Amino acid sequence: MYLLGIDCGGTSTEALLTTLEGRVLGRGHGGPANYTVNGVSGVLRSVREAMRGCWAQSGLEEAEAVPQITLAIGVSGAGRPSEQAELTEAFHPEGFTRVVVAHDAHIALLGALSGTDGVAVIAGTGSIAYGIHGERSHRVGGWGYLLGDEGGAFWIALQALRRVMRAYDRRLPEDQVLLEAVKSYFNVVDPSELIPLIYKTPLDRGYIGGFSKTIGTLADQGHGASQEILADAGRQLGRLAVSALAELGLTKTEGRVAACGGVFSAGRWVLVPMEEEIRLAAPRQRLTLPDFNAAAGAVFLAARHLCLELSPVAEGLRESSSHGVARDV
Amino acid sequence: MYLLGIDCGGTSTEALLTTLEGRVLGRGHGGPANYTVNGVSGVLRSVREAMRGCWAQSGLEEAEAVPQITLAIGVSGAGRPSEQAELTEAFHPEGFTRVVVAHDAHIALLGALSGTDGVAVIAGTGSIAYGIHGERSHRVGGWGYLLGDEGGAFWIALQALRRVMRAYDRRLPEDQVLLEAVKSYFNVVDPSELIPLIYKTPLDRGYIGGFSKTIGTLADQGHGASQEILADAGRQLGRLAVSALAELGLTKTEGRVAACGGVFSAGRWVLVPMEEEIRLAAPRQRLTLPDFNAAAGAVFLAARHLCLELSPVAEGLRESSSHGVARDV
Repeated sequence: MYLLGIDCGGTSTEALLTTLEGRVLGRGHGGPANYTVNGVSGVLRSVREAMRGCWAQSGLEEAEAVPQITLAIGVSGAGRPSEQAELTEAFHPEGFTRVVVAHDAHIALLGALSGTDGVAVIAGTGSIAYGIHGERSHRVGGWGYLLGDEGGAFWIALQALRRVMRAYDRRLPEDQVLLEAVKSYFNVVDPSELIPLIYKTPLDRGYIGGFSKTIGTLADQGHGASQEILADAGRQLGRLAVSALAELGLTKTEGRVAACGGVFSAGRWVLVPMEEEIRLAAPRQRLTLPDFNAAAGAVFLAARHLCLELSPVAEGLRESSSHGVARDV
Repeated sequence: MYLLGIDCGGTSTEALLTTLEGRVLGRGHGGPANYTVNGVSGVLRSVREAMRGCWAQSGLEEAEAVPQITLAIGVSGAGRPSEQAELTEAFHPEGFTRVVVAHDAHIALLGALSGTDGVAVIAGTGSIAYGIHGERSHRVGGWGYLLGDEGGAFWIALQALRRVMRAYDRRLPEDQVLLEAVKSYFNVVDPSELIPLIYKTPLDRGYIGGFSKTIGTLADQGHGASQEILADAGRQLGRLAVSALAELGLTKTEGRVAACGGVFSAGRWVLVPMEEEIRLAAPRQRLTLPDFNAAAGAVFLAARHLCLELSPVAEGLRESSSHGVARDV
């Protein structure tokens, strides 16, 4: 009996094959697998690709292994039960009999908190909070760059760019440090040249959001405006967490809120104000960085599906990781 | 001798042919003429189309009239001197010897304030403030929906939609009135269906911004959240005006700030907070609705180019308008 956890994301797919005790037998990677963008066939293609790496590393024969596997997949863009049911069905002809499909925030949360209940705030290019408490789950935010995504990397970059444009038309005092950073990242000599770059179609949120890393660097160097922007992002992300905690009845409970995603590489500039926001509403909740990644989260989801004890799984994953087999878990 | 004022906009072009005293001889309309979108050739095509209406209504022969005309054109998307020079040159082969090109905010301002100096805040789908004081001009905002456009129709619609999404994931209490309005305008049964609609490419800002009219209606009906959103828009637009006034050294001066564009059809909900914002910084500036439209503004620009007295021009335009020749000035 094996657990196979798969993280299907918009840019790549990761598969992790383990024993029932979480010992990693193999790992594989595949192409993009977003339900909305790539469709069911695209998801299947990338998953097959990622699984090939598992068979190769583990030395297991696919045909023999598959019937013994409990498969859990987190798929970005597949938030609705109907979409998840469609994906579940699509895996039956592949020989899998025990399949559980969730969306990507669900497995990110399970990975981050080693399979236990709680709330995760995921801040990559966009932002979303997701929580599980017993049979209930709740999402907050994640409505994209026009209607939501507060505190995400794209949002952070826009805050900085808006300051530059406001300084350009003299609504704000000039900020030479920020201006130089924008010129250098976006390769322009004048802020007005940003306009065609930013409004280019299709809108490249990943590229624009990448500027948030520079904001993190500037904050480290003592740049006040960058520190303010990141503190604001932290408060926004804290509020997402608080909403999820409140909705799930966890504000009085002891627990952990996981901070997942690239935005948190800015460290304390985001984490401290986020923690403060959470502490005010839920003083017994502790902010934490993820224990494991989302692929490991899918392994926990498979283990939960089998009603396994989770601490040995976590132990197995941790062991494998410290032994180098799964060093980037 | 004649004045020919032309307003080249992203959706249509309007031409207005007058005597040196502003008496309207003819009017014409043409297609879209945005410099960035339609290029110089597109602008020329729509201008020729609009001018045909002027010849037809005035009974003037084009070949005889053209040498006697001072032509002023305001072109959307043509903000830089180099672009304006390129357009000026493009009209010389058409037989025009006296040509002045400005961007669309410039002629909107001149129309709104009957050719006099001051500041205009233009709030359509986007927002921008533009001011003239003697030889100086200054723009504030107008950096598009990602970096600016605060208080514009698209911005207003997004504020409302963000509230709906926040209520949907229970960050805000449900607002049944707003929810019903959104469902009806966007023809959805559930807020989550907004996501594919809103993020459809190309982004239809005009359509989404059109929802701001509903916000105006709801405010009239006593809906608190709509009133708040419009008040916020008004304050944002007031701040644009204040920045332009400050930059041009007009905060201590008596004068008028013109409120141009569809957003102001919401009336007092936007105008009162906007006026308050202006009064705080520039107590002798009065907020006003436009005297004339942008095509008439281009006529004023032509008159200024000839160093004509402007009050007879304004009088002529007003007379023509009350006599029905130019009833939609």
